Amino acid sequence: MIKLDHAISAPVVHREHHRDADDDRPRLECGVCGVWGGEKDEGSSIVALGLHALQHRGQEACGIASVNVDRFHTERHMGHVGEAFGGSDLPKRMPGHAAVGHTRYSTAGGSFLRNIQPMFADLDTGGIAIAHNGNLTNFLFLRNQLVAEGSIFQSTSDSEVILHLIARSRKARIVDRFIDALARIEGGYALVAQTPKKMIGARDPLGIRPLVLGKLGTAHVLASETCALDQIGATFLRDVEHGEVVVIDEDGLTSLKPFPARAARPCLFEYVYFSRPDSVVNGRSVYGVRKRMGHGLAQEHPIQADVVVPVPDSGVPAALGYAHESGIPYEMGIIRSHYLGRTFIQPSQGARQLGVRMKHSPNRSVLEGKRVVLIDDSIVRGTTSVKLVRAVRAAGASEVHLRSASPPILWPDFYGIDMPERDQLIAANKTMEEMRAFLEVDSLGFLSVEGLYRAMGETGRDASAPQFTDHYFTGDYPTRLLDREIEEGGRELTNRQLSLLVSA
Amino acid sequence: MIKLDHAISAPVVHREHHRDADDDRPRLECGVCGVWGGEKDEGSSIVALGLHALQHRGQEACGIASVNVDRFHTERHMGHVGEAFGGSDLPKRMPGHAAVGHTRYSTAGGSFLRNIQPMFADLDTGGIAIAHNGNLTNFLFLRNQLVAEGSIFQSTSDSEVILHLIARSRKARIVDRFIDALARIEGGYALVAQTPKKMIGARDPLGIRPLVLGKLGTAHVLASETCALDQIGATFLRDVEHGEVVVIDEDGLTSLKPFPARAARPCLFEYVYFSRPDSVVNGRSVYGVRKRMGHGLAQEHPIQADVVVPVPDSGVPAALGYAHESGIPYEMGIIRSHYLGRTFIQPSQGARQLGVRMKHSPNRSVLEGKRVVLIDDSIVRGTTSVKLVRAVRAAGASEVHLRSASPPILWPDFYGIDMPERDQLIAANKTMEEMRAFLEVDSLGFLSVEGLYRAMGETGRDASAPQFTDHYFTGDYPTRLLDREIEEGGRELTNRQLSLLVSA
Amino acid sequence: MIKLDHAISAPVVHREHHRDADDDRPRLECGVCGVWGGEKDEGSSIVALGLHALQHRGQEACGIASVNVDRFHTERHMGHVGEAFGGSDLPKRMPGHAAVGHTRYSTAGGSFLRNIQPMFADLDTGGIAIAHNGNLTNFLFLRNQLVAEGSIFQSTSDSEVILHLIARSRKARIVDRFIDALARIEGGYALVAQTPKKMIGARDPLGIRPLVLGKLGTAHVLASETCALDQIGATFLRDVEHGEVVVIDEDGLTSLKPFPARAARPCLFEYVYFSRPDSVVNGRSVYGVRKRMGHGLAQEHPIQADVVVPVPDSGVPAALGYAHESGIPYEMGIIRSHYLGRTFIQPSQGARQLGVRMKHSPNRSVLEGKRVVLIDDSIVRGTTSVKLVRAVRAAGASEVHLRSASPPILWPDFYGIDMPERDQLIAANKTMEEMRAFLEVDSLGFLSVEGLYRAMGETGRDASAPQFTDHYFTGDYPTRLLDREIEEGGRELTNRQLSLLVSA
Amino acid sequence: MIKLDHAISAPVVHREHHRDADDDRPRLECGVCGVWGGEKDEGSSIVALGLHALQHRGQEACGIASVNVDRFHTERHMGHVGEAFGGSDLPKRMPGHAAVGHTRYSTAGGSFLRNIQPMFADLDTGGIAIAHNGNLTNFLFLRNQLVAEGSIFQSTSDSEVILHLIARSRKARIVDRFIDALARIEGGYALVAQTPKKMIGARDPLGIRPLVLGKLGTAHVLASETCALDQIGATFLRDVEHGEVVVIDEDGLTSLKPFPARAARPCLFEYVYFSRPDSVVNGRSVYGVRKRMGHGLAQEHPIQADVVVPVPDSGVPAALGYAHESGIPYEMGIIRSHYLGRTFIQPSQGARQLGVRMKHSPNRSVLEGKRVVLIDDSIVRGTTSVKLVRAVRAAGASEVHLRSASPPILWPDFYGIDMPERDQLIAANKTMEEMRAFLEVDSLGFLSVEGLYRAMGETGRDASAPQFTDHYFTGDYPTRLLDREIEEGGRELTNRQLSLLVSA
Repeated sequence: MIKLDHAISAPVVHREHHRDADDDRPRLECGVCGVWGGEKDEGSSIVALGLHALQHRGQEACGIASVNVDRFHTERHMGHVGEAFGGSDLPKRMPGHAAVGHTRYSTAGGSFLRNIQPMFADLDTGGIAIAHNGNLTNFLFLRNQLVAEGSIFQSTSDSEVILHLIARSRKARIVDRFIDALARIEGGYALVAQTPKKMIGARDPLGIRPLVLGKLGTAHVLASETCALDQIGATFLRDVEHGEVVVIDEDGLTSLKPFPARAARPCLFEYVYFSRPDSVVNGRSVYGVRKRMGHGLAQEHPIQADVVVPVPDSGVPAALGYAHESGIPYEMGIIRSHYLGRTFIQPSQGARQLGVRMKHSPNRSVLEGKRVVLIDDSIVRGTTSVKLVRAVRAAGASEVHLRSASPPILWPDFYGIDMPERDQLIAANKTMEEMRAFLEVDSLGFLSVEGLYRAMGETGRDASAPQFTDHYFTGDYPTRLLDREIEEGGRELTNRQLSLLVSA
Repeated sequence: MIKLDHAISAPVVHREHHRDADDDRPRLECGVCGVWGGEKDEGSSIVALGLHALQHRGQEACGIASVNVDRFHTERHMGHVGEAFGGSDLPKRMPGHAAVGHTRYSTAGGSFLRNIQPMFADLDTGGIAIAHNGNLTNFLFLRNQLVAEGSIFQSTSDSEVILHLIARSRKARIVDRFIDALARIEGGYALVAQTPKKMIGARDPLGIRPLVLGKLGTAHVLASETCALDQIGATFLRDVEHGEVVVIDEDGLTSLKPFPARAARPCLFEYVYFSRPDSVVNGRSVYGVRKRMGHGLAQEHPIQADVVVPVPDSGVPAALGYAHESGIPYEMGIIRSHYLGRTFIQPSQGARQLGVRMKHSPNRSVLEGKRVVLIDDSIVRGTTSVKLVRAVRAAGASEVHLRSASPPILWPDFYGIDMPERDQLIAANKTMEEMRAFLEVDSLGFLSVEGLYRAMGETGRDASAPQFTDHYFTGDYPTRLLDREIEEGGRELTNRQLSLLVSA
Repeated sequence: MIKLDHAISAPVVHREHHRDADDDRPRLECGVCGVWGGEKDEGSSIVALGLHALQHRGQEACGIASVNVDRFHTERHMGHVGEAFGGSDLPKRMPGHAAVGHTRYSTAGGSFLRNIQPMFADLDTGGIAIAHNGNLTNFLFLRNQLVAEGSIFQSTSDSEVILHLIARSRKARIVDRFIDALARIEGGYALVAQTPKKMIGARDPLGIRPLVLGKLGTAHVLASETCALDQIGATFLRDVEHGEVVVIDEDGLTSLKPFPARAARPCLFEYVYFSRPDSVVNGRSVYGVRKRMGHGLAQEHPIQADVVVPVPDSGVPAALGYAHESGIPYEMGIIRSHYLGRTFIQPSQGARQLGVRMKHSPNRSVLEGKRVVLIDDSIVRGTTSVKLVRAVRAAGASEVHLRSASPPILWPDFYGIDMPERDQLIAANKTMEEMRAFLEVDSLGFLSVEGLYRAMGETGRDASAPQFTDHYFTGDYPTRLLDREIEEGGRELTNRQLSLLVSA
Repeated sequence: MIKLDHAISAPVVHREHHRDADDDRPRLECGVCGVWGGEKDEGSSIVALGLHALQHRGQEACGIASVNVDRFHTERHMGHVGEAFGGSDLPKRMPGHAAVGHTRYSTAGGSFLRNIQPMFADLDTGGIAIAHNGNLTNFLFLRNQLVAEGSIFQSTSDSEVILHLIARSRKARIVDRFIDALARIEGGYALVAQTPKKMIGARDPLGIRPLVLGKLGTAHVLASETCALDQIGATFLRDVEHGEVVVIDEDGLTSLKPFPARAARPCLFEYVYFSRPDSVVNGRSVYGVRKRMGHGLAQEHPIQADVVVPVPDSGVPAALGYAHESGIPYEMGIIRSHYLGRTFIQPSQGARQLGVRMKHSPNRSVLEGKRVVLIDDSIVRGTTSVKLVRAVRAAGASEVHLRSASPPILWPDFYGIDMPERDQLIAANKTMEEMRAFLEVDSLGFLSVEGLYRAMGETGRDASAPQFTDHYFTGDYPTRLLDREIEEGGRELTNRQLSLLVSA
């Protein structure tokens, strides 16, 4: 018995997210990858490799659509890319030289299985499959409008809104229809679409979400990060530019800039946490930026200590930078387990800090009797940090000094990062001293916004025209937030529209 | 890892069907059942029971949508109803007093898993779920038109066309939108729809497909056959009439006849093969009709013989009628196995008639040395019949006289019955003597069309206004066949439209 | 994740059985089939076909062991034979020209998955796989003895006891070891064993359980019933005789009779209920015996009525016999559904007799206003019968006369039939009039023991040396019941031994 | 359908191992954990946590047996501990305060699923479950002997041999039976057994395999490593001593030393590779030993270079030691992916080093133009190393200097480590210069045996009585290798015994 979908719950559109109580990490919702123009029937295999490298951007579900002449083959799965698309029968199951894929965090419950991408539509101009990383800030506004016009939705994903906009465009050519749709959406996005004859890539006007272009033999590749190109064996050509639409077909690559020019403003959190350390994002090595964050942190928040210990894996480069700058030895004082163990039963005694212990184990031999500088990439709610701090103390540390390699997180995101509400963000609700006390540390330090800009290679933040998307630290959102505005000014909305609003 | 769908192949819309080479039975595509107004959270359980009784109308996939206040819960599964919806957690998984369900034959390959019903749409007037038995004869015409207007399809099912027509209706009230959609569709259909506040049932203008209305305590029930009402424990109220729309809500039942009155013309094959013998269809006992078919057959095609043997289970009532009329003893000369065994490997020797033997085993003790009258409900391609005849002879029968309780099948169906193409129908391609020789029988007889009408309680067929849908025997189709006409007059069509045509 | 076994619970050995509350049928625990000497790698496929035909003897689990030169391949599954062994890869998965298989009812819970046969052991003389139908009456006695000597058991099956007896035999040749083991076991059994060089079959000294021998080309086949030979396409050679050991190897078939000659006494319940109607058991057609039971029943318990209605499928031949003898028309007044639906939720109203309705639906059109003779093969607890009687009345029957084609069941079985305890057997606890009242029928009649013997072709029962095993009707057990005696004289047993006793 | 076991192949006993062609790591076969005396029904949950921490010792299969009064509950699964035993229903599924568990590498194919531990036997003294880490060097000798005496084996695991020895012991008490069995086995082992009243732990006479004892509230815990105690929240009491048997029951802990005293000789590979860095094995911090190995390596094999890069994760501590000793900066020049991706299809171009890339990605930003010292824990066949070296060069490294933190591996293991045959070991087949050329590095260096002993805190190796098991480096096996001797002197053996010999 194959169970198609556990429950399609409607009509309320939650865009809630499921996570462990103990999991305090921000999450990015997606990674995308596409290929066009290579060897016969290799499209799906290349995209599978690319998605494998992008698995850190969303590890709970994945999908691929391949195109063979004018026939699409789409598979969408829960679970890792290797399990879903690792088999040797992939070229047979999903033939064609062109393919597009997506990897994502699954959202709550079975109700949302349909949100797995790529999304497909059979238009009168032929089929189209779309994968999307990011978030539209006018998603609900557009969705309500489309439903009122008689469109039927199967998911609550941005991609389907874009598909409907394309389907309803009156333009004759698919690229024009695609641009018609882009003209109506707002927010941060990196899109990859496949039609029988073309691959289309697009990045939002500010370049909030990343997208890179590579070459593999005769084929063009689009991917969220360069690590996907490395995995595939492709050569990095360049970043897709902010506001750019690239079209790849038999005539090669065409670059379009259909909208007025604006300055780019890529997302800083890609450097702080999301991107893989071996990726180069917007021309900057992620590993290098993180190490410089550690150097800056050591300069801004020095301390007398015996060991610098990272929270693995994301804290490692900053800890190396901190250790180098401060001269304090770097040690693997916390061991990370790579096996999942989220739902273990907690015995009634002896396992007070079980949650954190499932993933991070203190290494007593380097902590005992030591003054420890603990380096994390960021501090969100602080609930995980305090458990780690306690574990480090329980392993014998005499002092614990916590350092965050990014500034205090004060504001929620609406461009594809899954972060808690403002009232859950520790830095938005406590003074520095209250935080220190809550986190049970001897001292606490955050990298400054200016320090972060310097780690990015800038001399500082240009307040009149900030070089990066940084609202989580500054409250300075780079775009209008239409859905949010409607929600807040909700009095003039119908009940129906209200029920559709995300609670974010 | 949950695999959502094996492959969504597009854009060509085949409506092909998968079946065993040895399976010579016509197939009906669906059974439907809905309930409204009973005890809290019992809707899905009642519909599950109803579908269980309708399993013979489609045993390979099933789905239920329940409505709880304004929230829909939909599950669609491959496999039997008992496996999919038998669990004691059903009321929790699928709460609400209202539900609608569907059981169907699965169509070819994984590509069509999405065709499992009920189909759901979230309209701006609220959600709606639809289950459908039958076939639209202008399906492709409507689907092409809707795609050209920007509708996105997820399946190749009639139900989705109807949903899009409802979604695009400009009427304010859901019942009016539903009738708007009915005004555009043609063919044979029995529809059951659920909205948060109403259950709607509809039967095509000729009543080709059956639909009955029952009462279970305070609840109303709609189902394809009365056996579903019996299973549930509901009381039979009446047949939904041809061209009638029934609306059940807090105000009780409302009957609408939105279209001009026509004479009913229900499908004869429901009596010949599809409906369960304990059902009463359009006021006639199916078992009684079948027995009378056997009586008529004995009158029209008498023979000297020792035993009357049915092809179980569908040939049993006609064989009892034949035995009674002829005075020849009735015996269970063929035993039917109720275990699936379709894909067994055939050993290299000794198992010449393996295919038929998996399902039907000759009972040597009643066949040996006997002159056998073998009664089947119908003969389609003849390939199964000849295997049965050989098996009966191999078990020692001295003569085999084959009798079909229905007339020769000469024409394909377009109203929801899955039958082979005309060039596969034995009676359409051979003379009576050629058939007899092909079937390797000593004599062969079919009930006449007039005889069948008499078994239905009529004095005969009214050629100017036939009382029943009988084109498979007569070639007299009860409606226009728009898709078919377009296909045949295809010169003026675009290539695209041609590619969408069913080959039927 | 493959789950090997849900729970191995030990050390208490229950031999309990799981069944629906509504399922009132006796159950036979097994069917066996083996083949030796045919085409390369066809052994497993032939046995799979044979098991498919024997599925009625146990439909919840099945297993096959094939032998390829000196390598065994064993698979054991929950579910039907067609699901487990229907794939085209079977010859590859399970190569070899020799194979042995088993089909069984699963016993309670996951704890007993290990009891699925065939059982395999790697002896110092080479491997051996054994399949067994029946029950040892000294099972616990032997098992306790073997455990005390250091044998380790993986199951609670008789087969494993036999394997340990073979493993511990000091004889050099496998056939002698096998006979050594037979010398120690008591009860009813049909055994098929495979070693790398031989297939061995054995039937208990009284021939309680059936076993037949057939030929398929060059291969020999052993099976529980002739219907398996028919399915495979094999020719029936003869029954394996009571107390006979047949050895099939390169030198052909050797028949051994290692134990003193006794008169055969086969089980009557094979004719009453278990065997398939198209099987010939111990030289008698099962269908023929059942029809004669119906004739006898009509003679012993005539009644004025309008229709004779069988409880399908097992009551059909006796009902035909009754109808023929009495001249009352036979009608399919109860329709049997062949879809499983055991765990459906029961709605709160309208479905009082839900349990019986899942399997048997009354056919109102032949019951309404009629005096009905209802024919069942046997009446065990009566709980199912009363539900059927009520359903028949609810469908309009004016009178219901129940007839059992076998005598009253008064005693439990210890030879492989799963029947309720004596205090659950209606006939053992009520007078005839109490039963009639309990069953809510107008009259009640059972075939007499003498009538049953006459249906078997005997002139009557020879009380001094009964021709058949018939203790369920007479209390006359054909063998000693050692485990039972130990249980009843349990005062001198250790606690440990007591804990191992079956509660039967 | 539940598939119990794919194929039980017999009688040849292979103890082969399945691994990726690219996977060049030695493997340890098992981790064990047991608990006795804690809170009601918490036994299985505590053991599940312990196994989770021991997952690195065997991540492909796991099993737990719990004991509730005198009833055992056993589950054995393929897959990770978190998947198998993470559910909240564990205490219900597996009740009791006592439990024993096992985690292991799965061996080739489905044939060996039965080898998953713990193994259970129902003796006449009651049930016993055993989990075992290590390898018996007289396994085949004992197994053949037991089979000849009539024991039936279900697996090819050491544990089952031990169970049969216990079952056949003539001693009355279970602890004496257990010691009887220990007296007959040879090799390296750590055993944990549960009976209804006692938990028993044992370590081989040389303490080759590790076993530690901890306390959790009132409960005693046995585990392979201290990291399991930390995970559970238990306090470390002490190592179980070499040759010691510990018995835990209602009277507390009893220590037995049933065999003559010998000097301990624990396995060095636990420090080099197997144990988790945060474990303390035989009183030494694994992390500390590994760092000192790096220090020694820098002293023995210094080089002019720009960066020290570990092969993560096992090379990290030695690389930190090397960096510290040499003053060369430590950098994460290779990023390890934690997602499985072993069976991806390799596109035809551009992905030459795909295998290594699935797990290890070079970090170009720290490798480009740099002279790199690459630190690995050991070099086995060299096939993985050369791929890594190429990947590092492809990322722009100007020089690559490879350093192995352990001495050259020259001899196979017979105590539970899965290493290739001698003819596959690069150091056993090539000169140092041949290895350097094969590995395509600019220089190559291995830590010396003396250096390794110094890292262990010794002044050097005592050749007359070596302090550790180190035959893989020295050829000096600590015990007799009976199975091996029989194999090599195989002329006097029967054919049957020969067929049972491992090819190791």
